[in-house]
Amino acid sequence: MTLTRDDLLARDRDDPLASFRERFELPDGILYLDGNSLGALPRATAERIRAVVADQWGLDLIKSWNVHDWISLPQRCGDKIGRLVGAAPGQVVAADSTSVNLFKLLTAALEARPDRTVIVSERDNFPTDLYVAQGLIKMLGGRHELRLVDTGADAPAAIGDDTAVVMLTHVNYKSGWTHDMAAVTARAHEAGALILWDLAHSAGALPVDLDGCDADLAVGCGYKYLNGGPGAPAFLYVAKRLQDAIQPPLSGWMGHAKPFEFDWEYQPAPGVARNLCGTPSVIGMSALEASLDVMLGADMDRIREKSLALGDLFIAAVEQECAGHGLALASPRDAKRGSQVSFTHENGYAIMQALIARGVIGDFRAPDILRFGFTPLYTRYVDVWDAAAILAEIMAEGSWDRPEFHARAAVT
Amino acid sequence: MTLTRDDLLARDRDDPLASFRERFELPDGILYLDGNSLGALPRATAERIRAVVADQWGLDLIKSWNVHDWISLPQRCGDKIGRLVGAAPGQVVAADSTSVNLFKLLTAALEARPDRTVIVSERDNFPTDLYVAQGLIKMLGGRHELRLVDTGADAPAAIGDDTAVVMLTHVNYKSGWTHDMAAVTARAHEAGALILWDLAHSAGALPVDLDGCDADLAVGCGYKYLNGGPGAPAFLYVAKRLQDAIQPPLSGWMGHAKPFEFDWEYQPAPGVARNLCGTPSVIGMSALEASLDVMLGADMDRIREKSLALGDLFIAAVEQECAGHGLALASPRDAKRGSQVSFTHENGYAIMQALIARGVIGDFRAPDILRFGFTPLYTRYVDVWDAAAILAEIMAEGSWDRPEFHARAAVT
Repeated sequence: MTLTRDDLLARDRDDPLASFRERFELPDGILYLDGNSLGALPRATAERIRAVVADQWGLDLIKSWNVHDWISLPQRCGDKIGRLVGAAPGQVVAADSTSVNLFKLLTAALEARPDRTVIVSERDNFPTDLYVAQGLIKMLGGRHELRLVDTGADAPAAIGDDTAVVMLTHVNYKSGWTHDMAAVTARAHEAGALILWDLAHSAGALPVDLDGCDADLAVGCGYKYLNGGPGAPAFLYVAKRLQDAIQPPLSGWMGHAKPFEFDWEYQPAPGVARNLCGTPSVIGMSALEASLDVMLGADMDRIREKSLALGDLFIAAVEQECAGHGLALASPRDAKRGSQVSFTHENGYAIMQALIARGVIGDFRAPDILRFGFTPLYTRYVDVWDAAAILAEIMAEGSWDRPEFHARAAVT
Repeated sequence: MTLTRDDLLARDRDDPLASFRERFELPDGILYLDGNSLGALPRATAERIRAVVADQWGLDLIKSWNVHDWISLPQRCGDKIGRLVGAAPGQVVAADSTSVNLFKLLTAALEARPDRTVIVSERDNFPTDLYVAQGLIKMLGGRHELRLVDTGADAPAAIGDDTAVVMLTHVNYKSGWTHDMAAVTARAHEAGALILWDLAHSAGALPVDLDGCDADLAVGCGYKYLNGGPGAPAFLYVAKRLQDAIQPPLSGWMGHAKPFEFDWEYQPAPGVARNLCGTPSVIGMSALEASLDVMLGADMDRIREKSLALGDLFIAAVEQECAGHGLALASPRDAKRGSQVSFTHENGYAIMQALIARGVIGDFRAPDILRFGFTPLYTRYVDVWDAAAILAEIMAEGSWDRPEFHARAAVT
């Protein structure tokens, strides 16, 4: 590598996104490369939460539903997320968890294709997506099949006349490999199937164009690249043309046409709002909204450009400095990669613990993946360089091979 | 009424729960009688949220799942709620919304009684409970029936050999009328049915003994008498003896036996944890836990005693001071009442707006209910007296009959 650390400091100085970093709270001495698991805290979010708790809940109490418009939070956050994923207003709501939203839309999709029995997905999809499909199939009496392909690239070929819905995560959580959203959506439609995209590792990380791809349904996560906070509310998207045909299985009062008439009979709200269920989590959703307001100030094309550059740099540095230590790149080298880089290593767990002990925070995904996420709003070029240098030291010293680094924590 | 305001000030001085009031933030000049819709903010909660956001999320980031034990929040909050509702540890988890939890357990109940087709409930149940049942019935192909009785007292007689599950809200949200939990549970079991209690207006408001009543399933709300904050996580209870037979329909990764092995095949966790679904809402659940810690410092029998005394006082004051103005008591006079008092009036909406404009915060429930909730931890005897006096003035003056009080807000 002919680059020097000074070159990277210079790139950071020239970075058009550089000013965003100071809008986040980041602990000293930490290289945080895990924003794909939990995004960092925007300073504005801390203040927004304080205001919602002390001023709104504390002082205006129940009146806040009207005077602070808590009741519109799901739609307001939804429309803001929509701007990040290529969805025109009125098609996204923030609500519940990704898993719960997936259940809602998967159920709706099967109902919309009553003569078809297959859900196409991939074995390497994030497990909760597969678990939700398995639970739903069981609940519906077992007449549906979850058809899993071994790699994402095999998905289009598995879609057939029997396919009710294609349920895929746009960016693979392990490898960062990215589906061609437009092409797979077109293939699903060609076969008469619906498409349901999970944008957990896409929203806020790279440009997504749901409307432009003619997507049907999507869900996504609020606490990764959207920086909405731990366990932030998730979101769901239903294309306008499908909204009034969907019968939400989780038909709670917030999805009712007139919730405050307290009628005993369910009548779905018009539009995407019918997919709401219980009372929205106001504090969590306010935190998410504050974070979205930060993110919407950045240009998504510049985010993508820097994200790929950070990843390219990390790959080059690790491959050069850690050669011969058994780390194998598990992510695409090209733009088919999301905003992460993964390597496999048989001692991946211990190596990641050694990195964390040295202040480089990535994460481990069983069985053997070391995963490093890049959040262009706060990850600097020099951080990536330093992280690679620390990894190189750990590998050269073999210092990961200590008992304390092999002991498994509750959460990995 | 021979009581004077000074008598009530004296009762407040002698109140063994008096010291709890200063543990809540309460705005000046407001008589807050709506803790049954949104509980007030405990001071400790504001501080806990600050710490979770700034110190845990902000500084420890992803490591917080282990070092601050975020991962155990659902069980930890669940066990604390268990102490308030008569459930031994390991039977309650905090999760999702009441509506979503109801869906989970209602589905499980129907699955546990495959040869039966009836869900017994009451027309006056909180609407979301009925909506969820209607959605589930539709989803399962329409072979089940939602049998609704007109009043809670009729429920036992509607339970028969065809009944799979009896789904009732312990304390009626409109009237405060309370089911005899032990008797109705016994009746359901006698008929071979399961019982599913909604404790939205019970948990934290009056003693509940789920284990002692041999209850099967229950759900409840975190933001009413538990003071967990707007849209706080809800909870669910599954009796130990049933836990391993339940197949959660919302089979997300947090209910998996080994979520961090990222296996593709769902395998439910042992015990009540299998009813978890997506990633827990950490900020909201931490707020709930802080509030539970306040509440667990109080004696539930004393809470109940004061709650009934506050209600008795309010009924006596309103009936004496507002006689002839068309307000009719809609709540039981005796201990079959929860922690609220309701009156009907054909102009109930406008009267409530007039009260709110004068700083008396209750709420209106369509079509004609004025609802006043009492939270003994922060409601004083003198508050109830003053609220009744203001209501009497409004009724005597007819000052509720102004255009601005008739205009409906988005949330009532």
